[in-house]
Amino acid sequence: MAESVRQAIEQRVRVFEAAFNQGDMAALAALYTEDAALMPPDSNTITGRPAIQQFWQSVQDAGMRHIVMSTQQVESSGELATEVATADLTAEAGDGTTSTIPLKYVVVWRREADGQWRLAVDIWNSCPAV
Amino acid sequence: MAESVRQAIEQRVRVFEAAFNQGDMAALAALYTEDAALMPPDSNTITGRPAIQQFWQSVQDAGMRHIVMSTQQVESSGELATEVATADLTAEAGDGTTSTIPLKYVVVWRREADGQWRLAVDIWNSCPAV
Repeated sequence: MAESVRQAIEQRVRVFEAAFNQGDMAALAALYTEDAALMPPDSNTITGRPAIQQFWQSVQDAGMRHIVMSTQQVESSGELATEVATADLTAEAGDGTTSTIPLKYVVVWRREADGQWRLAVDIWNSCPAV
Repeated sequence: MAESVRQAIEQRVRVFEAAFNQGDMAALAALYTEDAALMPPDSNTITGRPAIQQFWQSVQDAGMRHIVMSTQQVESSGELATEVATADLTAEAGDGTTSTIPLKYVVVWRREADGQWRLAVDIWNSCPAV
């Protein structure tokens, strides 16, 4: 059971990556619950899908268009699960050079009435530069 | 039931504040699970009580000796709960002037075999300067 929750969440993480990397911010926002809380560094908490979509669009507009996420740990109980993970966010400059920002994050996942796991809380911060 | 979980966690938050504000980093570390993950900004993940105690000691040594925490939201299922919250961390300089850093955080709480809720995952980041 716990293993199947982890598998379900890792599958959602792959969908998140794909939406982000394809630049489909509406699809990305739809992975969150309607009342989700996004907690970016140096920002107040951002609530709800329209504002979350706008936030991720601003990240893409700043040139950060590729993400790779790596789940480290999932704990679950009933319709609630927590994911501890790392991510690498990559920006490509106009001249084709890239820079990658290593992040770590915690997502609170909620399994909603339709059986789908969605991000209810999403918080991250920086790792030391490598 | 959900309300009593929130009350139990808010009580633990008060104990956390008291330990921090009294400078008792051993008591603070004891509020975490043995395998807890502490995820400070600009740091790799710190695992386990001895390393967590050392981290918080370093925060105190840097002059940040007063914390006020404010729980915004608690979700729980069985022995797992998540807390979304804000905190104000205050440093006092040698001349008595203070500066306060506003933070937001997510804690994953786990109710252990002895019935006590402990911090299993603790991640935070900065808010905009006021």
